[in-house]
Amino acid sequence: MNMMVIHGPNLNLLGTRKPEIYGKKTLNEINSEILCYAKENNIKVEIFQSNSESEIIDLLHKSKEIFQSQGIVLNPAAYTHYSYAIADAVEAIEIPVVEVHLSNIHGREEFRRKSVIAPFAMGQVSGFGGHGYILAMDALLNKKRRG
Amino acid sequence: MNMMVIHGPNLNLLGTRKPEIYGKKTLNEINSEILCYAKENNIKVEIFQSNSESEIIDLLHKSKEIFQSQGIVLNPAAYTHYSYAIADAVEAIEIPVVEVHLSNIHGREEFRRKSVIAPFAMGQVSGFGGHGYILAMDALLNKKRRG
Amino acid sequence: MNMMVIHGPNLNLLGTRKPEIYGKKTLNEINSEILCYAKENNIKVEIFQSNSESEIIDLLHKSKEIFQSQGIVLNPAAYTHYSYAIADAVEAIEIPVVEVHLSNIHGREEFRRKSVIAPFAMGQVSGFGGHGYILAMDALLNKKRRG
Amino acid sequence: MNMMVIHGPNLNLLGTRKPEIYGKKTLNEINSEILCYAKENNIKVEIFQSNSESEIIDLLHKSKEIFQSQGIVLNPAAYTHYSYAIADAVEAIEIPVVEVHLSNIHGREEFRRKSVIAPFAMGQVSGFGGHGYILAMDALLNKKRRG
Amino acid sequence: MNMMVIHGPNLNLLGTRKPEIYGKKTLNEINSEILCYAKENNIKVEIFQSNSESEIIDLLHKSKEIFQSQGIVLNPAAYTHYSYAIADAVEAIEIPVVEVHLSNIHGREEFRRKSVIAPFAMGQVSGFGGHGYILAMDALLNKKRRG
Amino acid sequence: MNMMVIHGPNLNLLGTRKPEIYGKKTLNEINSEILCYAKENNIKVEIFQSNSESEIIDLLHKSKEIFQSQGIVLNPAAYTHYSYAIADAVEAIEIPVVEVHLSNIHGREEFRRKSVIAPFAMGQVSGFGGHGYILAMDALLNKKRRG
Amino acid sequence: MNMMVIHGPNLNLLGTRKPEIYGKKTLNEINSEILCYAKENNIKVEIFQSNSESEIIDLLHKSKEIFQSQGIVLNPAAYTHYSYAIADAVEAIEIPVVEVHLSNIHGREEFRRKSVIAPFAMGQVSGFGGHGYILAMDALLNKKRRG
Amino acid sequence: MNMMVIHGPNLNLLGTRKPEIYGKKTLNEINSEILCYAKENNIKVEIFQSNSESEIIDLLHKSKEIFQSQGIVLNPAAYTHYSYAIADAVEAIEIPVVEVHLSNIHGREEFRRKSVIAPFAMGQVSGFGGHGYILAMDALLNKKRRG
Amino acid sequence: MNMMVIHGPNLNLLGTRKPEIYGKKTLNEINSEILCYAKENNIKVEIFQSNSESEIIDLLHKSKEIFQSQGIVLNPAAYTHYSYAIADAVEAIEIPVVEVHLSNIHGREEFRRKSVIAPFAMGQVSGFGGHGYILAMDALLNKKRRG
Amino acid sequence: MNMMVIHGPNLNLLGTRKPEIYGKKTLNEINSEILCYAKENNIKVEIFQSNSESEIIDLLHKSKEIFQSQGIVLNPAAYTHYSYAIADAVEAIEIPVVEVHLSNIHGREEFRRKSVIAPFAMGQVSGFGGHGYILAMDALLNKKRRG
Amino acid sequence: MNMMVIHGPNLNLLGTRKPEIYGKKTLNEINSEILCYAKENNIKVEIFQSNSESEIIDLLHKSKEIFQSQGIVLNPAAYTHYSYAIADAVEAIEIPVVEVHLSNIHGREEFRRKSVIAPFAMGQVSGFGGHGYILAMDALLNKKRRG
Amino acid sequence: MNMMVIHGPNLNLLGTRKPEIYGKKTLNEINSEILCYAKENNIKVEIFQSNSESEIIDLLHKSKEIFQSQGIVLNPAAYTHYSYAIADAVEAIEIPVVEVHLSNIHGREEFRRKSVIAPFAMGQVSGFGGHGYILAMDALLNKKRRG
Repeated sequence: MNMMVIHGPNLNLLGTRKPEIYGKKTLNEINSEILCYAKENNIKVEIFQSNSESEIIDLLHKSKEIFQSQGIVLNPAAYTHYSYAIADAVEAIEIPVVEVHLSNIHGREEFRRKSVIAPFAMGQVSGFGGHGYILAMDALLNKKRRG
Repeated sequence: MNMMVIHGPNLNLLGTRKPEIYGKKTLNEINSEILCYAKENNIKVEIFQSNSESEIIDLLHKSKEIFQSQGIVLNPAAYTHYSYAIADAVEAIEIPVVEVHLSNIHGREEFRRKSVIAPFAMGQVSGFGGHGYILAMDALLNKKRRG
Repeated sequence: MNMMVIHGPNLNLLGTRKPEIYGKKTLNEINSEILCYAKENNIKVEIFQSNSESEIIDLLHKSKEIFQSQGIVLNPAAYTHYSYAIADAVEAIEIPVVEVHLSNIHGREEFRRKSVIAPFAMGQVSGFGGHGYILAMDALLNKKRRG
Repeated sequence: MNMMVIHGPNLNLLGTRKPEIYGKKTLNEINSEILCYAKENNIKVEIFQSNSESEIIDLLHKSKEIFQSQGIVLNPAAYTHYSYAIADAVEAIEIPVVEVHLSNIHGREEFRRKSVIAPFAMGQVSGFGGHGYILAMDALLNKKRRG
Repeated sequence: MNMMVIHGPNLNLLGTRKPEIYGKKTLNEINSEILCYAKENNIKVEIFQSNSESEIIDLLHKSKEIFQSQGIVLNPAAYTHYSYAIADAVEAIEIPVVEVHLSNIHGREEFRRKSVIAPFAMGQVSGFGGHGYILAMDALLNKKRRG
Repeated sequence: MNMMVIHGPNLNLLGTRKPEIYGKKTLNEINSEILCYAKENNIKVEIFQSNSESEIIDLLHKSKEIFQSQGIVLNPAAYTHYSYAIADAVEAIEIPVVEVHLSNIHGREEFRRKSVIAPFAMGQVSGFGGHGYILAMDALLNKKRRG
Repeated sequence: MNMMVIHGPNLNLLGTRKPEIYGKKTLNEINSEILCYAKENNIKVEIFQSNSESEIIDLLHKSKEIFQSQGIVLNPAAYTHYSYAIADAVEAIEIPVVEVHLSNIHGREEFRRKSVIAPFAMGQVSGFGGHGYILAMDALLNKKRRG
Repeated sequence: MNMMVIHGPNLNLLGTRKPEIYGKKTLNEINSEILCYAKENNIKVEIFQSNSESEIIDLLHKSKEIFQSQGIVLNPAAYTHYSYAIADAVEAIEIPVVEVHLSNIHGREEFRRKSVIAPFAMGQVSGFGGHGYILAMDALLNKKRRG
Repeated sequence: MNMMVIHGPNLNLLGTRKPEIYGKKTLNEINSEILCYAKENNIKVEIFQSNSESEIIDLLHKSKEIFQSQGIVLNPAAYTHYSYAIADAVEAIEIPVVEVHLSNIHGREEFRRKSVIAPFAMGQVSGFGGHGYILAMDALLNKKRRG
Repeated sequence: MNMMVIHGPNLNLLGTRKPEIYGKKTLNEINSEILCYAKENNIKVEIFQSNSESEIIDLLHKSKEIFQSQGIVLNPAAYTHYSYAIADAVEAIEIPVVEVHLSNIHGREEFRRKSVIAPFAMGQVSGFGGHGYILAMDALLNKKRRG
Repeated sequence: MNMMVIHGPNLNLLGTRKPEIYGKKTLNEINSEILCYAKENNIKVEIFQSNSESEIIDLLHKSKEIFQSQGIVLNPAAYTHYSYAIADAVEAIEIPVVEVHLSNIHGREEFRRKSVIAPFAMGQVSGFGGHGYILAMDALLNKKRRG
Repeated sequence: MNMMVIHGPNLNLLGTRKPEIYGKKTLNEINSEILCYAKENNIKVEIFQSNSESEIIDLLHKSKEIFQSQGIVLNPAAYTHYSYAIADAVEAIEIPVVEVHLSNIHGREEFRRKSVIAPFAMGQVSGFGGHGYILAMDALLNKKRRG
């Protein structure tokens, strides 16, 4: 199975930014776990990080044609709360997208509880730190298995 | 590891109620998957279903003393949106609670997007049907492993 | 035709509570009228009163299998305004439910004007005191006759 | 007993407009049922349809003097949601008014859930199609019998 | 000076409708006082009552050409709260309009506190019963005197 | 092709009312342009102006039977913002309706940004003064051509 | 008849502050008109201006005992919008209070449209500049005459 | 004097749950103080704790007949914020009810500042920990003494 | 123990203002009870009444240095709902402040249900008339005893 | 006349994304129609599509200097609803901008009804699919002709 | 250049009140820095502190006539959020007023983010502790220099 | 000391865009003043302008490592009101950021009064045109001096 993982804005700073909320793992460490899980489960995975809304949109657009992705794990970070443009892209492509959040956004500031992307995603995983990506990949695998 | 799984109100009707949203699996089928996963991962699991808010509160209170639970998987169903009493119980006990929703509540009616329980939960999994329970158990296992 | 009538919380106090709003009839007197109307119209009716949200949910769940109900008259009283759990039960069962309110809730305090159950009910009758139950039963009869 | 029935705006189109919501009966068919019920119950009934807010107000004003009405069945249709002028007229006259809606307005779009007329009506019946008028007439009859 | 006085919907019922709020005077009695004051102050006054939004708009449109009005006293009654069409008419004509309310609308139900017409009126008088019309005419006279 | 053009309340005053917003053209001048465009494009057009909500509803009802209209251009003016009755009429008839506004209502006062009619219209043109009617007719023509 | 006139905060600056809204008259000129009207109508009037919320409350408290006032004309200026303390004082004393505003507050910024004092006042006059005080005194006189 | 004390949901966990907010005393210690105060003041007191909304309603219903209570001290805990059913029960019975909260709910999260029960209670005491029950009993005693 | 009692605006009118809400006791009678309770419990108490927001702030500032107060009983009356300045003063001083309200503000008009001072007070007592001050003093005594 | 046409985010997917809402035409087909219309009307047109907010801003900035545009047709797609940055750019340049939407955004989800760009645009066309661009160009042509 | 500096309510307590938010400097220390800066820049400065809304209004009124101020630095403290009376005074005088806040009010509690005074001030400086006053004086100096 | 100055979207147009609000200075003129002030105060300053949200995020990320910035002056322009992504970047880096606005945003349209970035900034300066940058640099210098 082919998957694409997209880390949104500011996630390149992981490990230094507010570790009590986002954890101490760096993005590299999380990516290692992702690759490790991918290998174990025979997944071909492409990982991207971008601070740019339009780059994320472009990646979503290209996911099917260019990368043959069959599932996408997306952590939209701050774009979660206002990027209707990313939401439209998620809706437009025909690939299931799982939304991941490191922290439990539903238990934080009011503005973080709203996701404009969620209505178009397959599902959402939040509050499990870097392990959330693994759970999201597992969910995509499971979905594919069951059809 | 000991876990408790609590299914909230109306989940006993699973498989017949709005299958296009909640899926065609019955609660028994989901419970089988839970037990199977528990066995594979050496988890001792207690499963409950209740339509009663106070029974759910009582189960949460007893989870530690009576059942030695080290983690709880809770699908509060409709209570998600207004039961501050269950929310207080989740906050009061010292055991990590993972909130599970079969459908992606963040993409449904306005009232279903708000969880009064989420601020006190460890994390949330929504949109993956019955497989969400497995992901939640995996998250609890992973948390225990890393401490 | 088989019907179930469910009186919600505090309705056991009818006749003494705020008679200028809820009328002077006791619940027994209303039940007599219901039974009388049922007899005249060849309806087999089961009547329940409960202060418990979960008991009401259980009754709704059992209405078809256990009682062979073909229609339900439900006065959810205060649960009208917040019990999404009862609302989900009304939606889940396949029997038409008519919502009855003794007083005209649409002309009272703000919070009483909102029914979380209405979106899933067949219809609503409010403002006619105990006679509302008769109207609701008439509506169910009429629906059955026309198919 | 004398009654007046007022059908509000766009109800002249009944049977063709959104039959999945408003039913397939034409206004004429509903009026026949009203007249039939009136005859059976010894009610003298005057029926009006108007698309005009001021005509409806004028009818309400004249109901007592000109028509000797002792009860009014009013389906304000779209005026339900904003005509404070009709609401004031309902409040000003001394005749009980029952509000009827063909569809269950409490389960539809947000704006349809609010009735500015309800606070001044005796009661409300909604969701039973054309049969709602019969229920409303029954409610008025019952009120008169009990005084 | 030429003035036009327009009484809005339901004011034809004055004296019978909720006398504790709107007073016991009939519209005829108020009109007598208006005519009396007009005579004393050399005002030529035309008085209208209408339950129709469009008739009120038409009167406002004709006030200058047909009636040579130099000031208008308008009690929009219930239309105060939602008739943007009357508000636009008040804005469009070049004659000062004084808004009159018999009761103190700012101290009543929430919806009565909002006037969509006020932003386009010269001023507002409320809470003085029928005498409010006299105050409004005085205000128009005074405005004309000072230019 | 047969079209109906309906000008709503206060539009008879065009050219004098707030010319900086609504332009200096009178309604007659706009109607001449409409007729001219109609002639050039072989359209049979009926033009109406009314300050009355119910007259507008009646025109919409009659558009198909009486006038054989195949498209309607409607400038609801102030009724745009609150007339659910006109909205219901637009929804009920089977003819495409294009909503026109002389000024760009989306850039004006808050209350002017909301159209209760839009959800039932085919499309909306706003901000182009009298030329907006021509654009609306062009849109209806184009729709007919493409089927 | 004895009256008290109270000018609220910043009114001492009248004539210089935003003359396009509040007019060019100074407070002294307005007071002269008040005194002149009082003399003509045999009214004994006491005039105060204060920027202090508590001084205004104290004046209201003393109005009956110390000044034998039988009516009060109050321009609460900015306190209109938030001083529940002045509102409580208006409610507590047994003397009719007429609220005066120089400009038409109902047609200005959102916050100026709300009066927390209005629910306890006899009536309100707004939009007539300094002449509003004369209208208010007239209203009090009229009320006394009719009892 | 006879009193009933009702502790709402999760209060059985007192002493362990968030001691910085709810204090370190267990429910047993608070109950001892209540009994001690009752003894000193010649009060016969019945104490209950329940996590169940319907049990609390049942207790309120039975308070007069079964327990001859002349006053009730109720800590509705989380039900404070949404249980209109308990609120209706408090309104329905004829016994004064004092609402007690251990913490100062008015200074906490937004949702905790609203009590749906308060409109029907005699008074409220919040922020004094377990001593609040003693104050509530004192208030009931004092009320009885003064009649 | 030294205490300060502060009565806010309009409380000097107690006994005459709305006795059905605020009771028939005058402020003097309440003060006698306060002094009596103080004497019995060996409390040195200073009592103030002020209609002035700034005087209340000044009293709070001086409470510790000048009066050696160890606790303050404050009835902010109308200032409760908007005086962030008094709220800041309560927060700034190091003495526990108990907020007292004669009536049950949580059961009255919407604006009276909000206290901007509560977040900074130790606790709140409302609905017990003049006896509320005694309960507040008792609460302060109890707090001191337990440290 | 020189024009610039800017297609916003996700419009490159046209024809595949939700054809029931956005139509079956691809962006290329729409562009052909634009070019065809331009040719017929002697318009020099530059067409751009971008998923990037800043690219769109840059295009707007350059429209005058670099492209000598005299009018801009802008379909901001999802940026319509939140890009105050694009709105500021539209306001800053001195070229008339017409906002185009393929679907009737005023009849769709709540968030799609709000345009932050509209207050600064010359006008808006929505609901006519690809033909909306032609209408917008016509509007710009017409504006230029009349000056 | 002549300047007036006004410190609002509770600022006399600076240095003791919440030093983590407002800093450890006392008002005297801040005033010394102000005087020092004034001396260096040839500014004649008058400094006031008041807890009284009306005193602050009076100071603003007198600033020009009595003190010949050419600029005012105002820290309205808690009055920032509700004193429309001070806002009106700022608007009424012809002297530029700079609003200063010690803490960054835009990053604190919701109610502290709103300034009713800001719309009438020249500018605002917040979040720099006592140094904010120096920045404000610098801004006034700079404005005077450039005219 | 090293500083970074970032000008947000559309600021490249300064001097031409709405000069009555944003002033007549071009960005170059402002930058000259910044450089001049930097030179005088021994500050090494890097200045950037970008219309791109992601470029601004990237600059903030690089500020410490690449530019050794010890303070950042950021004018986020329109991104102020919705870019949670920039807000997160400001929060994530360890360098104090001062938010600058040319105009007094707190006195403009509603949407411009809200800054999503402010909660994470050290402070804010608004309303002083280009001089605001100098004040911000002064604030950063002062902060560094005092540690």
